[in-house]
Amino acid sequence: MLVNGKPQRTIWLDPDDPAKVCIIDQRALPFEWIVESLLTVSDAARAIREMHVRGAPLIGVTAAFGVYLAALESTSNVFLSEAGNWLKHTRPTAVDLFYAVDRALRAVLAIPEGPDRVRIARNTALEMAEESVRSCRQIGTHGLPLIRKISQEKGGGPVHILTHCNAGWLACIDYGTALSPIYLAQEEGISMHIWVDETRPRNQGARLTAFELEQQGIPYSVIVDNAGGHLMQQGMVDLVLVGSDRTTLHGDVANKIGTYLKALAAFDNQVPFYVALPGTSIDPSLTDGMRTIPVEQRGAVEVKSIEGWDGRKRTEVLLTPSNTPAVNYGFDITPARLVTGLITERGICRASEEGILTLFPEWKSP
Amino acid sequence: MLVNGKPQRTIWLDPDDPAKVCIIDQRALPFEWIVESLLTVSDAARAIREMHVRGAPLIGVTAAFGVYLAALESTSNVFLSEAGNWLKHTRPTAVDLFYAVDRALRAVLAIPEGPDRVRIARNTALEMAEESVRSCRQIGTHGLPLIRKISQEKGGGPVHILTHCNAGWLACIDYGTALSPIYLAQEEGISMHIWVDETRPRNQGARLTAFELEQQGIPYSVIVDNAGGHLMQQGMVDLVLVGSDRTTLHGDVANKIGTYLKALAAFDNQVPFYVALPGTSIDPSLTDGMRTIPVEQRGAVEVKSIEGWDGRKRTEVLLTPSNTPAVNYGFDITPARLVTGLITERGICRASEEGILTLFPEWKSP
Repeated sequence: MLVNGKPQRTIWLDPDDPAKVCIIDQRALPFEWIVESLLTVSDAARAIREMHVRGAPLIGVTAAFGVYLAALESTSNVFLSEAGNWLKHTRPTAVDLFYAVDRALRAVLAIPEGPDRVRIARNTALEMAEESVRSCRQIGTHGLPLIRKISQEKGGGPVHILTHCNAGWLACIDYGTALSPIYLAQEEGISMHIWVDETRPRNQGARLTAFELEQQGIPYSVIVDNAGGHLMQQGMVDLVLVGSDRTTLHGDVANKIGTYLKALAAFDNQVPFYVALPGTSIDPSLTDGMRTIPVEQRGAVEVKSIEGWDGRKRTEVLLTPSNTPAVNYGFDITPARLVTGLITERGICRASEEGILTLFPEWKSP
Repeated sequence: MLVNGKPQRTIWLDPDDPAKVCIIDQRALPFEWIVESLLTVSDAARAIREMHVRGAPLIGVTAAFGVYLAALESTSNVFLSEAGNWLKHTRPTAVDLFYAVDRALRAVLAIPEGPDRVRIARNTALEMAEESVRSCRQIGTHGLPLIRKISQEKGGGPVHILTHCNAGWLACIDYGTALSPIYLAQEEGISMHIWVDETRPRNQGARLTAFELEQQGIPYSVIVDNAGGHLMQQGMVDLVLVGSDRTTLHGDVANKIGTYLKALAAFDNQVPFYVALPGTSIDPSLTDGMRTIPVEQRGAVEVKSIEGWDGRKRTEVLLTPSNTPAVNYGFDITPARLVTGLITERGICRASEEGILTLFPEWKSP
């Protein structure tokens, strides 16, 4: 999508030196635009763990590029396997990460040690990036009719869509998941207004989704995470679109903490609640999300303080008494019964085993 | 309750000069302790409008002291009535404000112009402050058995209570509403741990409730507003206790934005959800909360930026792109069907007309 009017992706090879993987340090957005070069697998692991990059699809592709950077260091079985393990342990919730590392390793380890492994690792990572772009665009294609229909029902009046966290191109390679139908609706000239949950504690909504929509010229308003219920009660939300970090075979959805609360409000007010996700973030090995999806606990500091722009630089300020204890869960699980549908690259399905297997028959247990 | 180990209230007459009304500038908490003197009705109106003081009961009593300060300026009917109107227009949602001003004016205007009006105005304000303290303590007395029962069921293990915003002594004169049962449970030695919603946009939870509990020595953790649903799903919340800015005769509860989302999560997970409130915040003239309670819209700046402590001083930082639009509703309405019960100074009742009229029979329509 656009940054300062020019097309931009979230990860790419340096055209002057393909041994460098370029990413946007998303921690600095929307205040500063910092492009960072990853030179080693350790750079890639740190970029994931410290959230220079975030979003399930982008984490996966960054890990695949991490395997490529590892291969540049050494193509030995031991080193590559260890690098893969290292990358897999950077974040616990997004299943794309494990898929991506396994796939990249499988491709590389399938051929003998040597420089060919570097080429294969690079091509696999590039291929996965392209697949993600196609998949996100397809999610947009399948989600677009939902927005078009509401627009028609409202006689062309603006469609009010609420989204949580950032499930846009910054979370992927391009287009995004939850925002992809919105970008395609914009291409079609459909009038929209997006309610952007700020998404504490890391404010990916206020920082990243706002940045994306601003750059793309789509009308939006940032709201606090507390506000969505009231807006839905007042009939000010036509549709909720969110992404997912991991979805079980039964359709339970792990996504950024707070998603469950919005799903409850949508259900209570009969607002359609759709989850947009690539098939790679479905985990067919899990069924009951509440009991089985591991939910990352992060540091108290993310709750106790916040970073913003003080007029001259990014500054972190304390929000609580200095000794305050804080607890910080990164995700919650929205049970399938609250999800109107899943928007995938293969179409829309019900959030149920039956629905998912209709689109992904390859996951039927033998 | 305690500040630095010494008993403290939120509003009092300066012992050296009873023409000065002292308040704590709560905007500076928990970082700085600033006591402010109000000398005129205009000072009182500004303190309410700009939220030096906040919380429905404290707003009401501050307005009553505002009428006293007005009487010090002039005891004419015209001036006092205008002052009353002015005070009533400082904030739109809390009904205590209108009650308090009407009651203070009625008392003052019942006697002829002259210095006696000053005395009556002062005594009325002081009386209302004392009534609020008694009423809050009574709310605590009636709410305490709920906590005691859970503690017994858990064999004395800590009772985990979630609260939203600040409904403690800082929102009242002393004790508070939602926190009053907690303070009384502490007196009884019951083991508790409080989940404190930070409560964006103004962070009254992270700033004020955390300050209160810290000063009182009650174990607590601050969480983001997004987290409560997950905690309830995981069985980590035994009870939700919140306050109310206005409650209708049918039991619909206006409270800080986000309360409705927590009520939905409590209902979905069978966690008891109680609202603690003085009878003065029930508005018997309203029934359907969703349609009739006016919800204050505040400035976008409260969403777009936040104040915290930068290590040396209070600093405001921007959280969004600089041109970002933001929308800021101050309250939402929790429908009676989601409320387990109302804890009032006269006892606990169902959140329904029948329940409320059992405790407040004076509101039966003739």
